[in-house]
Amino acid sequence: MGHFYGHGRNHLFVPGPTNIPEEVIRAMNRNNENHRSPVITALTKTLLDDIKKIFKTTSGIPFLIPTTGTGAWESALTNTCSPGDRIVSFLIGQFSFLWIEQQKQLNFNVDVVESEWGQGADLDILASKIASDKTHTIKALCIVHNETTTGVTNDLTKVRKILDEFNHPALVIVDAVSSIGALDFRMDEWGVDVVVTSSQKALSLPTGMGIVCAGPKAIEASKSAKSLRAFFNWNGYLKCYKSETYWPYTPSIHLLYGLRAALDLIFEEGYENVILRHNRLAKATRLAVEAWGLKNCCQKEECYSASVTAVVVPPNIDSGEIVIKAWKKYNLSLGVGLNKVAGKVFRIGHIGHLNELQLLGCLAGVEMTLKDVGYPVKLGSGVAAASAYLQNNTPFIPSRI
Amino acid sequence: MGHFYGHGRNHLFVPGPTNIPEEVIRAMNRNNENHRSPVITALTKTLLDDIKKIFKTTSGIPFLIPTTGTGAWESALTNTCSPGDRIVSFLIGQFSFLWIEQQKQLNFNVDVVESEWGQGADLDILASKIASDKTHTIKALCIVHNETTTGVTNDLTKVRKILDEFNHPALVIVDAVSSIGALDFRMDEWGVDVVVTSSQKALSLPTGMGIVCAGPKAIEASKSAKSLRAFFNWNGYLKCYKSETYWPYTPSIHLLYGLRAALDLIFEEGYENVILRHNRLAKATRLAVEAWGLKNCCQKEECYSASVTAVVVPPNIDSGEIVIKAWKKYNLSLGVGLNKVAGKVFRIGHIGHLNELQLLGCLAGVEMTLKDVGYPVKLGSGVAAASAYLQNNTPFIPSRI
Amino acid sequence: MGHFYGHGRNHLFVPGPTNIPEEVIRAMNRNNENHRSPVITALTKTLLDDIKKIFKTTSGIPFLIPTTGTGAWESALTNTCSPGDRIVSFLIGQFSFLWIEQQKQLNFNVDVVESEWGQGADLDILASKIASDKTHTIKALCIVHNETTTGVTNDLTKVRKILDEFNHPALVIVDAVSSIGALDFRMDEWGVDVVVTSSQKALSLPTGMGIVCAGPKAIEASKSAKSLRAFFNWNGYLKCYKSETYWPYTPSIHLLYGLRAALDLIFEEGYENVILRHNRLAKATRLAVEAWGLKNCCQKEECYSASVTAVVVPPNIDSGEIVIKAWKKYNLSLGVGLNKVAGKVFRIGHIGHLNELQLLGCLAGVEMTLKDVGYPVKLGSGVAAASAYLQNNTPFIPSRI
Amino acid sequence: MGHFYGHGRNHLFVPGPTNIPEEVIRAMNRNNENHRSPVITALTKTLLDDIKKIFKTTSGIPFLIPTTGTGAWESALTNTCSPGDRIVSFLIGQFSFLWIEQQKQLNFNVDVVESEWGQGADLDILASKIASDKTHTIKALCIVHNETTTGVTNDLTKVRKILDEFNHPALVIVDAVSSIGALDFRMDEWGVDVVVTSSQKALSLPTGMGIVCAGPKAIEASKSAKSLRAFFNWNGYLKCYKSETYWPYTPSIHLLYGLRAALDLIFEEGYENVILRHNRLAKATRLAVEAWGLKNCCQKEECYSASVTAVVVPPNIDSGEIVIKAWKKYNLSLGVGLNKVAGKVFRIGHIGHLNELQLLGCLAGVEMTLKDVGYPVKLGSGVAAASAYLQNNTPFIPSRI
Repeated sequence: MGHFYGHGRNHLFVPGPTNIPEEVIRAMNRNNENHRSPVITALTKTLLDDIKKIFKTTSGIPFLIPTTGTGAWESALTNTCSPGDRIVSFLIGQFSFLWIEQQKQLNFNVDVVESEWGQGADLDILASKIASDKTHTIKALCIVHNETTTGVTNDLTKVRKILDEFNHPALVIVDAVSSIGALDFRMDEWGVDVVVTSSQKALSLPTGMGIVCAGPKAIEASKSAKSLRAFFNWNGYLKCYKSETYWPYTPSIHLLYGLRAALDLIFEEGYENVILRHNRLAKATRLAVEAWGLKNCCQKEECYSASVTAVVVPPNIDSGEIVIKAWKKYNLSLGVGLNKVAGKVFRIGHIGHLNELQLLGCLAGVEMTLKDVGYPVKLGSGVAAASAYLQNNTPFIPSRI
Repeated sequence: MGHFYGHGRNHLFVPGPTNIPEEVIRAMNRNNENHRSPVITALTKTLLDDIKKIFKTTSGIPFLIPTTGTGAWESALTNTCSPGDRIVSFLIGQFSFLWIEQQKQLNFNVDVVESEWGQGADLDILASKIASDKTHTIKALCIVHNETTTGVTNDLTKVRKILDEFNHPALVIVDAVSSIGALDFRMDEWGVDVVVTSSQKALSLPTGMGIVCAGPKAIEASKSAKSLRAFFNWNGYLKCYKSETYWPYTPSIHLLYGLRAALDLIFEEGYENVILRHNRLAKATRLAVEAWGLKNCCQKEECYSASVTAVVVPPNIDSGEIVIKAWKKYNLSLGVGLNKVAGKVFRIGHIGHLNELQLLGCLAGVEMTLKDVGYPVKLGSGVAAASAYLQNNTPFIPSRI
Repeated sequence: MGHFYGHGRNHLFVPGPTNIPEEVIRAMNRNNENHRSPVITALTKTLLDDIKKIFKTTSGIPFLIPTTGTGAWESALTNTCSPGDRIVSFLIGQFSFLWIEQQKQLNFNVDVVESEWGQGADLDILASKIASDKTHTIKALCIVHNETTTGVTNDLTKVRKILDEFNHPALVIVDAVSSIGALDFRMDEWGVDVVVTSSQKALSLPTGMGIVCAGPKAIEASKSAKSLRAFFNWNGYLKCYKSETYWPYTPSIHLLYGLRAALDLIFEEGYENVILRHNRLAKATRLAVEAWGLKNCCQKEECYSASVTAVVVPPNIDSGEIVIKAWKKYNLSLGVGLNKVAGKVFRIGHIGHLNELQLLGCLAGVEMTLKDVGYPVKLGSGVAAASAYLQNNTPFIPSRI
Repeated sequence: MGHFYGHGRNHLFVPGPTNIPEEVIRAMNRNNENHRSPVITALTKTLLDDIKKIFKTTSGIPFLIPTTGTGAWESALTNTCSPGDRIVSFLIGQFSFLWIEQQKQLNFNVDVVESEWGQGADLDILASKIASDKTHTIKALCIVHNETTTGVTNDLTKVRKILDEFNHPALVIVDAVSSIGALDFRMDEWGVDVVVTSSQKALSLPTGMGIVCAGPKAIEASKSAKSLRAFFNWNGYLKCYKSETYWPYTPSIHLLYGLRAALDLIFEEGYENVILRHNRLAKATRLAVEAWGLKNCCQKEECYSASVTAVVVPPNIDSGEIVIKAWKKYNLSLGVGLNKVAGKVFRIGHIGHLNELQLLGCLAGVEMTLKDVGYPVKLGSGVAAASAYLQNNTPFIPSRI
């Protein structure tokens, strides 16, 4: 595919797939192995233990499924719910939309709570639904932690509070695809029953591993859930966990070695430092957007996403053109606007294995592209605003002090 | 996982995952990319075109699903059949067994035709079932082309002949996981409606891509099939093919680049040469087994598999011990006996990117291991028999003449 | 060496070793091979042909020596000159200094023409020396094309003109280590007799290949040169070229494959485009330096280097601290000041496989670091100046239009 | 260079370059770095310490020079001797021949002691020369530990004994290129003054690092040696060791990371186990040669090499044809006969990162090739003989017990 060759590094700022650290690329640079050898068994054990730290759970059980986030969604649903079950689902962007479409395809009775795109999930409506659901017809809540389309993060602690207030047993199923490993996430503390993420986001791996973590209530629910399921069936995994064979079918040993390296890097940096870094880069991005005179698609400060910022362009500009030009001229990959916000926003992913100067290079590229498409930006303005923040708030790299 | 370190190369002779060519490892040694960029679109187009050559189809439509063979099975079934549909399924080994288990989990009405393990599918019974099914209650036949457990290959031309004889419309769904790319397979000529394979077998890639190829009758059936499906739904792919976006969700760009390299290697060697090579290595293996005085688990010569040979050990020997010792002493990975043949057979996979001397090294290792576990083999006997055949039948490497 | 781990990419802006393109890293990701096989012979032939295009020579003979630039210097000298020979050498920075040291170690009679560091070679003195050297005691001129210490490029056409004017037969031996592949270089047109470069600079390879290209006059001189030499002897290569065995001793096949990939990339981008890109990034860097209120170590505009800019810091600041802080806080690798300019300059290498946004990320990092060490820079000012130039002068990536 | 493509792995059995372990390939799969950063300094320190263990020296000083074995030879000579110095050198094969050629090129007074090729160094003549050299005109002895051409290993303890007997101060300079890391080598115990090896042999790295280890007497000699030298001058290294900058010019960081991984593997396997493994594979090879009815080029059992076996073919066969056919038909790379034994011997390298089954695959390939060229070998005979030995003498892989 050489005819798309561009000089220098590609600047990958879509909100996933994200940049893979050299250490992870190296770890996956290998021949196949017998996935039934003691090597893979021992490796799997360490992964199942360590991935729980990323979810901040001790009681959850993780499943590392050879699939994508879409498959992981399905696994979360079909293992816990039965066709016809009432599910309250929040529609706040393209990924919650796609998940809801899936919920419908799988014959659940989906009770959609829609918000304007750019807003978070409407938890007032949730509260009223829960309050009135005396007979517990609501089987589960499906909510994205971080809606990648609009750069909106929902506050999951509030969801838990509402359920607790009414002592409602609904399962909380969370799409944390673009949040786990980037945003603070506390599965146990927040009472989340199922969490879904995938490898090519903050974990900085190639695509191909859908990760589901199921808490005790979800595991219990799986025993009676009637949805047909085979490949995504947790039961196959649970049997293999018990027999210590671990895999009901062939895993990608490359992704296992990759995940091992990715987790090692996270622990070496310090998981809390990783989250702080995401916050720092996100804040810097927002300051740049402000300096350019543009608006954040996310309408409330408390919902600002630490992994992606969706930027609203003026009506006379097509955000798609920005994305194309950035790629064609500066080898910069930005996210397009999707569905309702197509043409209206472009997205800067600041998720995964990134640092300050990579981001500033991206912001410089966005500035130039804005000018290229006719938006009267002052070149340097965004970088200046972001730099001012970063210069003050970036700690020394701990290992190099 | 350094504590399993062994000097020299691992000799990987399980019947999958198989050895990855250096060219493919190199092709996958890369950072992530935006899967929505024109680069990936152009790459995908070439893959969808070229993979059809491997299936020998012009009318089939391929789906490159981020899953394993198990997921590809499910995709083949749920897109073509509805719960309650009668499926005739042949049970001849562990993988047909697992597929049947899946068919049951998915609520099909499975009409199991069992053979002794080591025998092929009982097509006489099929003939009588088809003959008596005047009302066409049989919706589909599910058959493995090559049963990896026992090294048995079924003759698919006979299946087609039976259906044609009675003008029966049942769909023919074939698990070609351990055959596509190794054995002669002619989807169109043989009238196969759905073929399933996966990346880590003869295609010599990492695990993670389940490949399904659906013929026109199968595509037609998918329009009315009632099985619930989301991730595995062909419809999502078909819509994306139409819009030339190609991917309903994120693919592994690493596997796409890997598949490109793998196909290039197959075409460079010549696809027919690849198949001849598999036949050659299989024949050499069988000659060695014979020289050792051991029996092939596959009981009929016309069913001998070109991708794996299951070797029956004498009753006083545990085949599992052979597999463990070979790995612990010679860094040789063989396949264990599964289920009914556990302890009774071990398996030599001769599938994927292999050559004559790799195989002879393996055979030498098997001989020594046989002696290690107390079987009175004459060292060198199997290698001598295999060498005699290979020396006479191995052509010069075309590119080096 | 995990304890130096920094998150995100290292921003490598030393003036060599430079960033290696993914394509080149991939090409070198391989096992060893028999260096005497027809594969390597065929590969070598293409390399010897194509490397000449980089030197813009048709009559020169290239030697790809397993060594560094320092070894390539030695090869250039000992193959053309004899101990005691008078060599006029220009001292304008650390690398010309080291080369002169080598010339002295090798017992040449070195006639050093020193300039203030930051100035180019003093060609007026050369002219007078040449003019007065009626008996042709000067055997060779040694001149660096691009002095990496100070970011100064010498005009080689003037050197040729002086020699021609006086019809002087002195050999012109050029250190083009940090120029070949980045700056316009015309060996034949400029009458250069020996050119020296190395792999880890603009060719963007790992260190380990010293490349020497010798013109006809140099080859002729090598027949009578009395310097003892063995490893670096061109004669060994010339014999092997004649017999088409090519290598007098074992080459690094990894660097051969890497060089093949590197040359392919240069030709794909277009060699003239590569040079234009270096000019563009260099100009942008200088505009940033100016905006910061700092001085270029190179004192004349016509000598500005397209591959590295040495930036003079105010007397109250230690440039070494800038380099250390940039690495410790921003994972940015800059070049230190060397020898006479130690502590006084830091260097931004803009050489090799780089693009606009990588450079702007670096410049943003330099700005923040300048502020970190107490220099009152206006954050964003350098990036703004550079961006304004780049936005106007960066063409679309040809392959993506 | 795809037109030489062969299916399956290349079987690399030339006596260098050798097979690179996956772990080492991975370690070198990386971007460039600033070679002046603390990372490389720390890495270098560990390498300089650990490489001494491979030489079994505590008093020696290692130099990791970006060159090949040929360059390392030159470094050993020019740093210790002066032009005109008398050197006693043993000519027993192509590599000792080439080294002697180099010694002559460098103007030493070479006193050549020739043996028939296939014999070891004639130490009786050495003894008489030393005995009669009352005035110590002999400055140094140059001897290859393992002559790669003929598969002959010299006994260095005898050399030391002769010198000690006459209390002769001659330096002992040893080419250990194809022995270090494969054969037992004890620099301090054997009183070796300079040892030379290179990266692409038993250390299993790419070509490009020439390693010289100099004992105290050699270091002392370097202070007065008059040979002109620059690139290869130890003094540059020694100064950098003192200042802890370590590198007088740019090293290949790729080879440094590679060497780190290679040493780690050696230590993980156990250095003594590595040597035992080389002995085991060598013995197995010789048993195969005997079974084929062919002769070892090495004429005395006590001189048999543990890293390479040169096999004499019958007069009616051209050994070169064997090498070509093996490559063209079986993707097997063997060593040709060189110089005096061209056409008469082929060589099986059993050096570096190899195991039993790799060797047996090679031996099977040699057998078939012998038959291909008309030699009446009994197929399987060599493998049988080698297997019988290996089955009895191969220990379990320690980490897998």
